[in-house]
Amino acid sequence: METCSAAGVAGGDVRALARLITWLENGDPQAVPVMRALAARPRRAQVIGVTGPPGSGKSTLVDKLIAEARKRGARVGVLAVDPSSPFTGGAILGDRLRMQGHATDEGVYIRSLASRGRLGGVSAATQACVRALDAAGYDYILVETVGVGQSEVDVVRIADTVILVAVPGLGDDIQVIKAGIMEIGDVFVVNKADRDGADRVVREIRTMLETAAALKFGAMPERATVDTLSTHVMHGIGEGQAHVDPHAFLADLPPVVKTVAETGEGVPALLDLVIAHHAKAEASGALAERRLAGARAEIKSLVSGRIDAALSEEPAAGREASLARAVADGTMDVYGAAHELLAVLKAQPLGR
Amino acid sequence: METCSAAGVAGGDVRALARLITWLENGDPQAVPVMRALAARPRRAQVIGVTGPPGSGKSTLVDKLIAEARKRGARVGVLAVDPSSPFTGGAILGDRLRMQGHATDEGVYIRSLASRGRLGGVSAATQACVRALDAAGYDYILVETVGVGQSEVDVVRIADTVILVAVPGLGDDIQVIKAGIMEIGDVFVVNKADRDGADRVVREIRTMLETAAALKFGAMPERATVDTLSTHVMHGIGEGQAHVDPHAFLADLPPVVKTVAETGEGVPALLDLVIAHHAKAEASGALAERRLAGARAEIKSLVSGRIDAALSEEPAAGREASLARAVADGTMDVYGAAHELLAVLKAQPLGR
Repeated sequence: METCSAAGVAGGDVRALARLITWLENGDPQAVPVMRALAARPRRAQVIGVTGPPGSGKSTLVDKLIAEARKRGARVGVLAVDPSSPFTGGAILGDRLRMQGHATDEGVYIRSLASRGRLGGVSAATQACVRALDAAGYDYILVETVGVGQSEVDVVRIADTVILVAVPGLGDDIQVIKAGIMEIGDVFVVNKADRDGADRVVREIRTMLETAAALKFGAMPERATVDTLSTHVMHGIGEGQAHVDPHAFLADLPPVVKTVAETGEGVPALLDLVIAHHAKAEASGALAERRLAGARAEIKSLVSGRIDAALSEEPAAGREASLARAVADGTMDVYGAAHELLAVLKAQPLGR
Repeated sequence: METCSAAGVAGGDVRALARLITWLENGDPQAVPVMRALAARPRRAQVIGVTGPPGSGKSTLVDKLIAEARKRGARVGVLAVDPSSPFTGGAILGDRLRMQGHATDEGVYIRSLASRGRLGGVSAATQACVRALDAAGYDYILVETVGVGQSEVDVVRIADTVILVAVPGLGDDIQVIKAGIMEIGDVFVVNKADRDGADRVVREIRTMLETAAALKFGAMPERATVDTLSTHVMHGIGEGQAHVDPHAFLADLPPVVKTVAETGEGVPALLDLVIAHHAKAEASGALAERRLAGARAEIKSLVSGRIDAALSEEPAAGREASLARAVADGTMDVYGAAHELLAVLKAQPLGR
């Protein structure tokens, strides 16, 4: 039988680490004692999320970020996460990365994570894997997702810094980014910046960020400029924020950087921006807040998992089946059924 | 204060129905006594899900299905559901439908449902709204979704019959359908069938259905034909299914029908196929099974909702906050935190 000790993981045993991650991916309870033993260690790694539409060159960018971080002497862990909804074909990012020449580098650990089971569980599993990589001594942990759906957003939210990758010529995908994903980006990248239209994409992203900031600031649907923000302040809009200096406010917007991942152009600057974001977030307390939110989400996910497990055990499982039958037959209403099932659950041991 | 009685809803009071649906949409507890009072009534309506990629003409198709059902003397309820992930712009389907001339028809009730809160909740809320429309005496309840993402799939799963709409010329979207959504379709439509390539799309869908069936039958990656299936049976592949008649097996595949929603062409045939699917599913017990699964999902969703609510009340809320802080600080492991939180939850009243 395969085993895996916390000491092995912490001591750099890659096979122990791989086994632990497999357990976490599968929700195997064997992971629990190992993770509990590893939890005593303080968090050290910087966690970087990378997301963006398919075709934006995320994999190549991650490849070059790995190389840049290695140049600076850091060890790098990579989790390529595919929250495989039935609708993504599922390019196996991790495999692609492994082929790009890091396979023999002991300072790099690359792993694909597939979604087993429910979507909600992917981000919790990813978070646990991040903690395992952290304990194994990796300095940077890159979390890359396939696409930009809701589950991908949930996954990258666990990162300390989120890189949102756009690219010229995807037209509609920029619209996709517009629609709501903007808020999760801490650093924006326009990749393939040697293509026509890169500067236009940069401008579009800036405009979106400024508009979003203006809306937040004063609920006025216009682009934020020093002028419009000053007007807001003059008119007492942006309640409770009249002390905000518009120049400082605009300077606080996430940076937008151009890269050509194929050649590596712009990648050192990107890594610098990521490091700067992390340092700033650490100083302001924003990082602590984000990690608190992450911890809360992970606890809740474990609690739900335990309750789901309890629902599949007797007596809840049997009672649930008969309650569902009564609801389907129309002899019982669903609220009454939920009430009864909760009572059964409360009387049952929850969790191991 | 606005009120709403079960008798009003059951008696055809449209304003009472509208209010009840708003409560269900918002998760307002005022809905509970009304829904409990309505639960005693047997289910009568036939629930039809309509899904497919944006641009496939779903809205026009739904419009024409309404007209066809009205011609046959049936009353029709429509729920246009947008599980608004941040990434759908969210065309407001219900509004578009209302403008198509059913607004003054008392035999038609059209309503858009937005996603408030968590994704998991949309399908449960939709299911509750379907029950409200059923109690209000609508014969057909159409549930239309904006796109074809995971949450849309979850929503249409609650239908008795799912219509999956494809269209020529979307190329990639057919790929999307290929990837995994096929299994939820009970009746396949190739809409805009007056366009070039409609027959090719019909053939592609048939091939996919046959291949999927062949895989299920004998785990052989080839298209199912009477010949290949007979070969499977001869070779003892398709274990335990040697008694299956390949002709009957292929006849059992979901039908594929061409429509031109703009002109109404093919829509009567489509409604006939939907009705036939329903009758067959009722006779075979498949419908009862599907409704049982729906009831189970709805109960579970309510149970999770109650637990979430309990988590936001004292003492769990306070304990959760301090546990999350301990996990984020690294002074406690997440498994221990989940264990403690579960103990607090068990000691706390769950649900109203």
